[in-house]
Amino acid sequence: MTRDDALRLDAQDPLAPLREQFALPEGKIYLDGNSLGALPKATPERVRLAIEQEWGTDLIESWNKAGWIDAPRRLGDRLAPLIGARPGEVLVADSTSINLYKVLHAALSLQQGQRKKVVSERSNFPTDLYIADSVVRAHGGELVLVDSPDEIPALLDERCAVLMLTHVHYRTGRMHDMALLTRWAHQAGALTIWDLAHSAGAVPVDLLGSAADFAVGCGYKYLNGGPGAPAFVWVHPRHLGLSYQPLSGWLGHAQPFAFNPFYQPAAGIQQYQCGTPVVLGMAALECGLAVFEGAQALGGMAALRAKSLALTNLFMEELEARVPEARIVTPREAAQRGSQVSFSLSGELSGAAYAVVQALIGRGVVGDYRAGDPKRLDAEPHLLRFGFTPLYTRHVDAFDAVQHLVDVLATQAWKAPQFQTQNKVT
Amino acid sequence: MTRDDALRLDAQDPLAPLREQFALPEGKIYLDGNSLGALPKATPERVRLAIEQEWGTDLIESWNKAGWIDAPRRLGDRLAPLIGARPGEVLVADSTSINLYKVLHAALSLQQGQRKKVVSERSNFPTDLYIADSVVRAHGGELVLVDSPDEIPALLDERCAVLMLTHVHYRTGRMHDMALLTRWAHQAGALTIWDLAHSAGAVPVDLLGSAADFAVGCGYKYLNGGPGAPAFVWVHPRHLGLSYQPLSGWLGHAQPFAFNPFYQPAAGIQQYQCGTPVVLGMAALECGLAVFEGAQALGGMAALRAKSLALTNLFMEELEARVPEARIVTPREAAQRGSQVSFSLSGELSGAAYAVVQALIGRGVVGDYRAGDPKRLDAEPHLLRFGFTPLYTRHVDAFDAVQHLVDVLATQAWKAPQFQTQNKVT
Repeated sequence: MTRDDALRLDAQDPLAPLREQFALPEGKIYLDGNSLGALPKATPERVRLAIEQEWGTDLIESWNKAGWIDAPRRLGDRLAPLIGARPGEVLVADSTSINLYKVLHAALSLQQGQRKKVVSERSNFPTDLYIADSVVRAHGGELVLVDSPDEIPALLDERCAVLMLTHVHYRTGRMHDMALLTRWAHQAGALTIWDLAHSAGAVPVDLLGSAADFAVGCGYKYLNGGPGAPAFVWVHPRHLGLSYQPLSGWLGHAQPFAFNPFYQPAAGIQQYQCGTPVVLGMAALECGLAVFEGAQALGGMAALRAKSLALTNLFMEELEARVPEARIVTPREAAQRGSQVSFSLSGELSGAAYAVVQALIGRGVVGDYRAGDPKRLDAEPHLLRFGFTPLYTRHVDAFDAVQHLVDVLATQAWKAPQFQTQNKVT
Repeated sequence: MTRDDALRLDAQDPLAPLREQFALPEGKIYLDGNSLGALPKATPERVRLAIEQEWGTDLIESWNKAGWIDAPRRLGDRLAPLIGARPGEVLVADSTSINLYKVLHAALSLQQGQRKKVVSERSNFPTDLYIADSVVRAHGGELVLVDSPDEIPALLDERCAVLMLTHVHYRTGRMHDMALLTRWAHQAGALTIWDLAHSAGAVPVDLLGSAADFAVGCGYKYLNGGPGAPAFVWVHPRHLGLSYQPLSGWLGHAQPFAFNPFYQPAAGIQQYQCGTPVVLGMAALECGLAVFEGAQALGGMAALRAKSLALTNLFMEELEARVPEARIVTPREAAQRGSQVSFSLSGELSGAAYAVVQALIGRGVVGDYRAGDPKRLDAEPHLLRFGFTPLYTRHVDAFDAVQHLVDVLATQAWKAPQFQTQNKVT
């Protein structure tokens, strides 16, 4: 593969026009859309309208006139096709952590105290584990963590209440087989909760087709909703009305404006809403979702997935060919990976991952770093992590990123002092 | 009082220049800042910068460079003087309902199962009751509701864990004596939780001086943070590190970027953070808080309170003089009211409150309506509710609002069919 080959792939890419819908910074190769998605060009004007017209001029009238009150379900309906759900099943609200808290309580309430064990991965994104720890504590249950997915089947027993997994792993980019694991869980009488933080907008997701039970996910990664965008929650309709979630705020009430002193949950997914929707964040996220609707005519998520796999494949092949120190931890098999590539550096470079990422950022190649466990560096090494958002990433970006890495290593540019100091947020 | 008298009061008002900092709609008298505060003129440009520069151009770098990660505590520090707290004690995060859930759990955890009764008012804002019901259920406790504040002292006994009150009542505008009730609660061994939704930015609040235990409040009312602005939470420092709140998300961890699988709460108020801060909402709220800092030179909250009392007093005196059907439910005594005036209409107009509010809105006088309990209309009548934000409300606005009401009643304009249909949000 040459740079011209990569440029040729971009010239032939039917999805290439989608990049024009994003305001990407000049001179940067942005490969961190799995941490914070890029800015859709439509967003500033849409948020300006929400502020100046809807808030500034129309004020409280906008709850009805601008549809603020319906935004959590309206955005949920627009998001639903990306995750294999139907309109009316998804709610956009709160943060991923808080939504996970809701569905974990709901799932354990469905098990009616008969089963109290929650199974997850020790390397799951920490907030999922912290929230699960809190919820199992409230139910007098137990959180059981596996070191490898291979250990999961043996734990799906008559004590298992919930299998809680992040669909695409935040460190490695490894993707679980949602349908298979859900089937195994159901055969054992357990329920499944899927965290789609690194899936929604990145890979096709089929919640209903997988017969999943609950899902949550993030608005500010591949959905490009902006920093701290509201998150989402999905509950299989068979569980609505039977499950109980404890964040029983007024907007989850059947009649919020009747101001009754006693709580009566709304029918449907609305009962998962708690407080007032964050209107500005909703306006921004709606622009992120609109890009996906525009991509429908170009093949939608199936086409985006094909491009994502091509990008991550190109990146991995170039890495293997040109960076012998790279140890790729992301699965090569397409069905087992999401839309990112992570690798460690071997030998004497194994501790240099942070500085190498900083040196790359210094050259305009934005990826990120995820620390390993220093006590068990072989099992969990420091990682360089690169996300490939098919909406706006070009083949030549993947190619150039590897070239920059080759240069950074060849020149030992990462040894410069300014690349050693850790920022507050890494 | 004549209209010229009101204009003269405005001409002499040292706080009058603050109105220039708001983008108020032409031709409206906006008396609903207790529902949604008006737009500060600085906000659109600040949010545009957050979107285009911080998000669009700097992307993930902004977590450090633009201080996104510190926003919850930075805004908390700016808010602290308005509620009698110190820097480092307040966190801006999530919604009022969710923050109330955190502090209710924390307060009950401090009582260590010895006391499980939570006392509140039946007419408290419903979300507070719904959340309290959920939390007492989790602790095997009991929520006891009083119909009148007079009943509270008798309930502060050896079973009482928490006295949970909204400082300024959302319907009547009646203000509790925070210091006195907190002292009574403490004498009985109970803790206090204060919902400052209708207090912060409206009346001087002295949490530390009152020795209160916990407080929560809203960013989108008198703080002018915009629709769905993030809320705030305060915990007295004596309780930090001892109390437990279950929304244990990663950003409340002592070392969130160490990605440890086990939760260890951060020291201080940071442990009340859960997920990622809503950056756009934070940027908007910061502009709302800046207005109060600018008001410091003009006398700050003390001067704002004096003006607020003058406005509500003027409105009540005009109402009494000119609208014989008005039954004011807001206390006339200054120490017992917040920054709003609520009243019902007597006799055959008692059911017309909604239509009258709509007719007033049709004339540009924006207040709102709060339904009473139709089964006990004497005790809890339908209310017309008007908020007087001293930052931007003029004496002449209060005067003119009464004149419009006189006209609406005299012409029976409220009987027009378009004013009868209830909106989704009232």
